Amino acid sequence: MLPRENRQVLLKTRPAGIPQAEHFEIVSRPLPELAQGELLVRNAYLSVEPAMRGWVNSAANYSTPVGLGEVMRGFSAGEVVASRHPGFEEGDLVMGMLGWQEYALTDGKAIRRKVKERDLPLSLSLGVLGINGITAWFALSEVGEPRPGDTVVVSTAAGAVGSAVGQIAKIAGCRTVGIAGGPAKAQLCVEAFGYDIALDYKSATFERDLAAALPGGADVYYDNTAGAISDAVLQHINKGARIVVCGTASVANWEPWPHGPRVERHLLNKAARMQGFLVWDYEHRYEEAVTRLAGWVRDGRLRYREEIVEGIEQAPGSIASLYRGENHGKRLIQLTHR
Amino acid sequence: MLPRENRQVLLKTRPAGIPQAEHFEIVSRPLPELAQGELLVRNAYLSVEPAMRGWVNSAANYSTPVGLGEVMRGFSAGEVVASRHPGFEEGDLVMGMLGWQEYALTDGKAIRRKVKERDLPLSLSLGVLGINGITAWFALSEVGEPRPGDTVVVSTAAGAVGSAVGQIAKIAGCRTVGIAGGPAKAQLCVEAFGYDIALDYKSATFERDLAAALPGGADVYYDNTAGAISDAVLQHINKGARIVVCGTASVANWEPWPHGPRVERHLLNKAARMQGFLVWDYEHRYEEAVTRLAGWVRDGRLRYREEIVEGIEQAPGSIASLYRGENHGKRLIQLTHR
Repeated sequence: MLPRENRQVLLKTRPAGIPQAEHFEIVSRPLPELAQGELLVRNAYLSVEPAMRGWVNSAANYSTPVGLGEVMRGFSAGEVVASRHPGFEEGDLVMGMLGWQEYALTDGKAIRRKVKERDLPLSLSLGVLGINGITAWFALSEVGEPRPGDTVVVSTAAGAVGSAVGQIAKIAGCRTVGIAGGPAKAQLCVEAFGYDIALDYKSATFERDLAAALPGGADVYYDNTAGAISDAVLQHINKGARIVVCGTASVANWEPWPHGPRVERHLLNKAARMQGFLVWDYEHRYEEAVTRLAGWVRDGRLRYREEIVEGIEQAPGSIASLYRGENHGKRLIQLTHR
Repeated sequence: MLPRENRQVLLKTRPAGIPQAEHFEIVSRPLPELAQGELLVRNAYLSVEPAMRGWVNSAANYSTPVGLGEVMRGFSAGEVVASRHPGFEEGDLVMGMLGWQEYALTDGKAIRRKVKERDLPLSLSLGVLGINGITAWFALSEVGEPRPGDTVVVSTAAGAVGSAVGQIAKIAGCRTVGIAGGPAKAQLCVEAFGYDIALDYKSATFERDLAAALPGGADVYYDNTAGAISDAVLQHINKGARIVVCGTASVANWEPWPHGPRVERHLLNKAARMQGFLVWDYEHRYEEAVTRLAGWVRDGRLRYREEIVEGIEQAPGSIASLYRGENHGKRLIQLTHR
């Protein structure tokens, strides 16, 4: 029996900066019949990403913003509960741009991958085996290009992406320096994610601690924050350093456009590289990343933390919570128990 | 008969920003005897480079600063007039870090290359066939990676490096947009150096002109200036754009460190790359560049402008003159007529 109603999180008003709970509303809508070529996914988990801020802002971005009144764009993972699509059958586990809603009706284009790792929790397909882990793998290996013996600095080091970056860098034979907000997260970096050193950027001695942690400089800086943290790290980059620009979490608003110390002289003096990363550019290679990551999860070399909250009503306030740094693991909204 | 005396330009005091004439002094010193393994070069031309600002400043840089009382570091080209070095003989033409002086005594390490293009003026070995042309070639081809059909934007487009960049980009099948200071230099860009469009950044309509010149955006930005020009160009970069950071001519002083609009969002949204270039990293490949460049000079596809002034007493004020934008071609100091 297919359900009649589908609860959805819609974008109600457009935020100027970080989206808050009041920018969304939850509605219940009738679920249309499946047409030929369509499938219906029952979402088990909704993912919460820092990048969602950009998806709902009207400022220039890499994608067109979510329209007002539209279902909030987002990754979800779930089970195919009905299919009139030749590529999918009931019981398939899938992950994709299925939106913040209980059920997603799609012609298949929204599906990013079938989840083949049925021995591992489905939730991982949204975190360490999903966009976060995939981002960590491609951004670090293809843009950061770590070499054994390199020192790799990571900001938001305890986060869903950062925690994977640090561990992959260790596997690659690097020394890792994590930067996180507060002593508890710094401790998590070292104890849970194997960072060689972790620093609290909120500490009054942060700049001094950073200098002490980088006696030989930084070869790779995996930047999830921009802002003052990046300005500090840039002063320690080595000749030929690679700076991976993966996120700008510390910048609350791009209107008006924030200013900071110019980067040109650092890049010139060190013949260094600063490069933006968009995981969409690697969509055709996701399996390659997941195969590798799943292997490391299975043999215990890649650890992860999840922070799962229950019920779709938790979704609207969850992005702002991320930006307040309240999460201690990959933030997911759980909708069903399978 | 070898000379007894050698006039030299010494760094007298250390400038905070752009070096002026008063930071140097000209002295005459006795020339020592040649020891075994040494050679003596009579400098015919001294080169004047924007990068010299960095060489005399004490701020963090890619090389140790020139010491007070030392001969000003600089490229020169000349003729070997005596040699007790097995690798050089009288009459060889050479280019190297021979300093701002009439004669350079060296064990050979200061020589960057023997000038083999004896059919072309020796002065070119300091410009279009020297560090400027070599820089243009490697920075554009290895960092900028232009592809046929790309739009390439160049700042200081009429300068010794920029003029070569624009022409090499045309040879590579690109559309070229030059940015220069003043209508005369903009005209030079189009008429002498073949730019498709040239813009005067001093014009009140510069930002509008730039938008109009880039209806399809910029794929490569060859940046010799940093500052407001770069901030404007960054707003027009395309997906996957490459920004070559080759110079920071518009920044008069790095103490205190200047601020500007943050670049991270541009790089992230466009998965773009910003990379510093140091020509020293390509020293082992200079011949590869010069062979190519000389061929294009001979067949008329690579044009150049020189602005040659006579006499070593012109050297001290020449760097400041470059930064005032007074030159209309590669600035050289001529010491001999060969």
